[in-house]
Amino acid sequence: MSAVAPYLKAIASRRTVYALKPQLPSNVTLQDVQSVVEAIIKDTPTAFNSQINRAIILTGAEHKRVWDETVNSVQGDSGKKRPASVRDEAFGTIVFFTDDKTTEELQAKFPVYASIFPQFADHSSGAAQIQTWTALKQLDVGGHLQHYNGYIKAALPKSIPLEWQVHSQLVFGLPAVDELPQKSYIENPVKIFS
Amino acid sequence: MSAVAPYLKAIASRRTVYALKPQLPSNVTLQDVQSVVEAIIKDTPTAFNSQINRAIILTGAEHKRVWDETVNSVQGDSGKKRPASVRDEAFGTIVFFTDDKTTEELQAKFPVYASIFPQFADHSSGAAQIQTWTALKQLDVGGHLQHYNGYIKAALPKSIPLEWQVHSQLVFGLPAVDELPQKSYIENPVKIFS
Repeated sequence: MSAVAPYLKAIASRRTVYALKPQLPSNVTLQDVQSVVEAIIKDTPTAFNSQINRAIILTGAEHKRVWDETVNSVQGDSGKKRPASVRDEAFGTIVFFTDDKTTEELQAKFPVYASIFPQFADHSSGAAQIQTWTALKQLDVGGHLQHYNGYIKAALPKSIPLEWQVHSQLVFGLPAVDELPQKSYIENPVKIFS
Repeated sequence: MSAVAPYLKAIASRRTVYALKPQLPSNVTLQDVQSVVEAIIKDTPTAFNSQINRAIILTGAEHKRVWDETVNSVQGDSGKKRPASVRDEAFGTIVFFTDDKTTEELQAKFPVYASIFPQFADHSSGAAQIQTWTALKQLDVGGHLQHYNGYIKAALPKSIPLEWQVHSQLVFGLPAVDELPQKSYIENPVKIFS
């Protein structure tokens, strides 16, 4: 079991970190983050190797602009708090997409699976998102996953294809806290049937 | 970047391995596989910490029975080939589920997110599936991911709750080949907007 221990330890180390500063650890560059995301997007499997995952990184003025538009679009003061803190306290945002045009081409090509291809895309996108979150943690970059999908879609740079479905936003930066709240777990055994 | 290199290497090492023998590597037990799946199900994040992921392991007579029923249910000789090879050549199957009852409770509790909770469940299930596949590879266990969801659902042990939605089957065993086909990749840059 020792061969898998580092991998499981990495997975267990990933946590939701809301308290962030708008910087990176001193030994990590934005290009490091970019390389990590590219590697994970490349190696996350997709149905029929369709490679439907896409991602972009927002930082600096574009990060601020997109989240400011989100703050202005969300109704109600309490709802604006999270996007405002993301705008002001995070270093950047990785936006995860799947290319719906490719999914539609798969549906046309393999009609017997047409109804399940969107779920396959969701499975693969979820893996890309959560693996990226875990990978950034290995670099001491903290993050939390948000789903302001409609607001973000409306505020994205205009060069992003409309067929790219927004799945989530992994907000990242330098953790501003040392201690995180305890997580609670349900009893959830994996039974063997033999 | 060296802190994240082993994690990225693990991700890149995961491949689809169809050619399997119905055994495990000599230093790996079924309980090791069970521990890996339990750890990953536990530590894969879920919306509102809802912990909707579930899994079981089929092996031995139950693995054979479930896949034999699938072979008998699938129409046409060519369609029967894959489930027959799984039945005869794999050591076991990890079936991944999400608990739809929990998802429905979330939808009732947070109606503003009701329409997106099924996608959140798919994201989390996909992460659990693909991380398990990667983890098994670290133990030199090979596998491939199948989606005979309706057939498997109909053949499952009767103690599995009906509300557990079947997402996929990770079929595993000892790799029977040393060489795998080259994978092809599209150009898929992750652009920075700043």
